[in-house]
Amino acid sequence: MNTNAFGSPRLERLVKRLGRLPGIGSKSAARLALYLLHAEPEEARELMQAIEDMKTHVRPCQRCGAIAEADLCSICTDERRESRLLCVVAQATDVFTMERASIFRGRYHVLGGLLSPLDGIRPADLRLEDLSRRVEDESVEEVVLALSASVEGEATALYIGQQLEASACRLTRLATGIPVGGHLEFVDDVTLGRAFSARLPLG
Amino acid sequence: MNTNAFGSPRLERLVKRLGRLPGIGSKSAARLALYLLHAEPEEARELMQAIEDMKTHVRPCQRCGAIAEADLCSICTDERRESRLLCVVAQATDVFTMERASIFRGRYHVLGGLLSPLDGIRPADLRLEDLSRRVEDESVEEVVLALSASVEGEATALYIGQQLEASACRLTRLATGIPVGGHLEFVDDVTLGRAFSARLPLG
Repeated sequence: MNTNAFGSPRLERLVKRLGRLPGIGSKSAARLALYLLHAEPEEARELMQAIEDMKTHVRPCQRCGAIAEADLCSICTDERRESRLLCVVAQATDVFTMERASIFRGRYHVLGGLLSPLDGIRPADLRLEDLSRRVEDESVEEVVLALSASVEGEATALYIGQQLEASACRLTRLATGIPVGGHLEFVDDVTLGRAFSARLPLG
Repeated sequence: MNTNAFGSPRLERLVKRLGRLPGIGSKSAARLALYLLHAEPEEARELMQAIEDMKTHVRPCQRCGAIAEADLCSICTDERRESRLLCVVAQATDVFTMERASIFRGRYHVLGGLLSPLDGIRPADLRLEDLSRRVEDESVEEVVLALSASVEGEATALYIGQQLEASACRLTRLATGIPVGGHLEFVDDVTLGRAFSARLPLG
């Protein structure tokens, strides 16, 4: 029983799979697996269906890179959003953080990460060329950088500054107010709102 | 965006489903859903497969009620286990707890709960008749009660005591006392009282 504490290889396998998910330790994984074991078959089936549905239908928006269920996301297709105001974020999840604070009425551009030579993330790995193209094609008047206040965020901001230097659009960034070294997803809404209001010209 | 912070009803639905699992709050659910969204399709597929496999193949052992992948569990089919020693537990998960401690070499009987008139759990709801039958059929010599030291555990122990009164088998229970490593100042009065009554000669 030492190599298989549950007396069931299949249960053990599920515990191992669940234990790979972020924030789920071996005890939580065991508790979840046992919960699912005793749950109504319908509940387990609906959970599997929800995972499959999401994996099948949710994909990046072809224009901004945010999460979408069609070619374009609900923000890109929303006529009420200001199209000449573009907010640049690292991850699709940062869009939710911004939207939750209800401070921005423009559209987004998701880079898909931040520049990090040490991790091998170079300009070509991010959606930086798409950004330049969008700024031109969509006659963007202001690009707001909403990036983490980390070394990678600074490097990415500098790079975008150089990239858009020749463009006529205004380039701003969230005000300091975001704690140095802090990640965007952990910033509270009030701080985020103040940082947005006090956004500053880059350079 | 307020009613659907993720801009995707399918992602939102998965977050809700995950949030119903024990110990998973709304933030953990969102993190898990986003992890699965960005995970390789293969990883999500294997997780779903593991859930389905378990729901399809894992079931209660027909003899002892523990978790099994066949009619009988791996303990009931293990010839090296002492068949005349029976440990009575409330839940299938209690079998793992006992096995983890490697202290018991007999077999188990899972009641499926504890007597609790207030919660409407009566003798007929538990596998108590099965216990009497097994004690007779398997010529059991000792029944060890490994039940929680709660009101329900006490009630169930008393009931089993009456039930097996006419039987020739020995009926024992786990000792109550001060947990190893426990500080005296944190021990409750009832536990202290029992530990005092059951005091043992030193050395």
